[in-house]
Amino acid sequence: MTTSSTKTTFSADPYASRLAEKWEAVERVDPVIWNDRYAGPLDRKQLDRFQQDGLLSIEQLVGTDEAHELLATAKRLAAEANPNDESIVMEPGGGAVRSIFRVHRTNERFRALCGDSRLVEVARQILGSDVYIHQSRINFKPGFTGKEFFWHSDFETWHMEDGMPRMRALSMSLSLTANHLFNGPLMLVPGSHRTYLRCAGETPDHHYRSSLKKQEYGVPSRDALRLLIERSDGIQAATGSPGSAILFDCNTMHGSVANLSPDDRTNLFVVFNSIENKLVEPFGGKPPRPAFLAER
Amino acid sequence: MTTSSTKTTFSADPYASRLAEKWEAVERVDPVIWNDRYAGPLDRKQLDRFQQDGLLSIEQLVGTDEAHELLATAKRLAAEANPNDESIVMEPGGGAVRSIFRVHRTNERFRALCGDSRLVEVARQILGSDVYIHQSRINFKPGFTGKEFFWHSDFETWHMEDGMPRMRALSMSLSLTANHLFNGPLMLVPGSHRTYLRCAGETPDHHYRSSLKKQEYGVPSRDALRLLIERSDGIQAATGSPGSAILFDCNTMHGSVANLSPDDRTNLFVVFNSIENKLVEPFGGKPPRPAFLAER
Repeated sequence: MTTSSTKTTFSADPYASRLAEKWEAVERVDPVIWNDRYAGPLDRKQLDRFQQDGLLSIEQLVGTDEAHELLATAKRLAAEANPNDESIVMEPGGGAVRSIFRVHRTNERFRALCGDSRLVEVARQILGSDVYIHQSRINFKPGFTGKEFFWHSDFETWHMEDGMPRMRALSMSLSLTANHLFNGPLMLVPGSHRTYLRCAGETPDHHYRSSLKKQEYGVPSRDALRLLIERSDGIQAATGSPGSAILFDCNTMHGSVANLSPDDRTNLFVVFNSIENKLVEPFGGKPPRPAFLAER
Repeated sequence: MTTSSTKTTFSADPYASRLAEKWEAVERVDPVIWNDRYAGPLDRKQLDRFQQDGLLSIEQLVGTDEAHELLATAKRLAAEANPNDESIVMEPGGGAVRSIFRVHRTNERFRALCGDSRLVEVARQILGSDVYIHQSRINFKPGFTGKEFFWHSDFETWHMEDGMPRMRALSMSLSLTANHLFNGPLMLVPGSHRTYLRCAGETPDHHYRSSLKKQEYGVPSRDALRLLIERSDGIQAATGSPGSAILFDCNTMHGSVANLSPDDRTNLFVVFNSIENKLVEPFGGKPPRPAFLAER
């Protein structure tokens, strides 16, 4: 019986989701900091903070002038964007560009930045291996117009819909404009990365086409969210000036409210994954999402 | 010509709106503090602040225990509410009660509070006369569910749809739960009360039925809002513990984002109007809104 039990544990997916009728909160089985082999840009205090909270603010990851230049490039890409291109997501109701995906492939300026040692070495240090870019995107959240995005863990989606095996990836959100309390900043739940929420309900086909605007599957239940938020030290808003960044674990719960201020909130998101955590068949059993969402 | 010009100025409505094709920003013609005859609960510094910003926070306008009791009453009223009652407004999509209007008439506990000297004397002191209640409501903004409300000046609606002649009214929002940065607190634009925005577009019949959920007419243009917000010291969020209150002028621009936190945000709103500012025929030329929205 012991053998059988061990075998079951080994072969079962620890991060199964969207199967049962009810949600379930289970403990993360993976490390947060994968090892300390790489002497990197983060000091012990920063690593401990990331371990504890699943997120870390970095002031001036790039310079202010550089952030302004990147913003100008981002605006140009939005102005030139073709709404029929699959990698372009428009705001619900149309009109404004919400996201441009895969800029690390399609634009030289962002390709260089995504490969820049200031970003890559941080990712390597935490993930304990060489890394590659799983996804990149510019998120525009226009003043008065940018819509809310409900709470979610990226990993749940990446595991179920992309086939990312383990929690060994992280996101970096670089502020190209100021992120302040009223322009719909990223909100994160510190400590939530230590708990995996199995969501209820199966995934429909081609879910990603609608989920990029409004997610309906892989959405954590309200009871589960309440549990995570009550366990934490409270919600944190990622505010900062252009050039500052927030780093967060692939399983950190996050969301954002609408931007009711006049100020655009434009951020570059880069997702680094460990090369030892390459994608396999999606754990949700459907065909994988396209490459602009998940490099394979 | 001088006589004619004087006459025109006298007879024209200084707060005309929803007529032209374009918005217009004009200076408020009314005082903010109507006089200092009433020695009231507010000191000179508080009056100056209200004069300057069009808003004022008051810590512990009622005690914490009293706020908890009021919340319990509010919850009971919501549980017993009949969604078919016109004075009950449900959240878009149904399910949760968004607002219960006219509680100063329909519930003894709230009737007593709305007539309590702690509230009334503040209103009298600013409005410089006896006052009456133009509107009261409990706003429920349930955790995870409460929706955003776009920027608006109450006075524009009260003038155009209710026939309130002058800017001689104010709102008091009393926190029955904590109002914090993440449960969709009221956001206000300090100084915006000194400018009246004429909105573009006519009012449809029975506009109030939809406008209580989502306003479409009498909505300030984005350029106008940008102007007001840039002139101000920045948006302010009205946060506070149960029992605290925020007082704001009838023409102070305000709005709120969705409540993505688990915590309900429940506030009592009481609008006091000067008895020297009683309602006349609506300036928008349509029949007046019903009494649960505007006492006549």
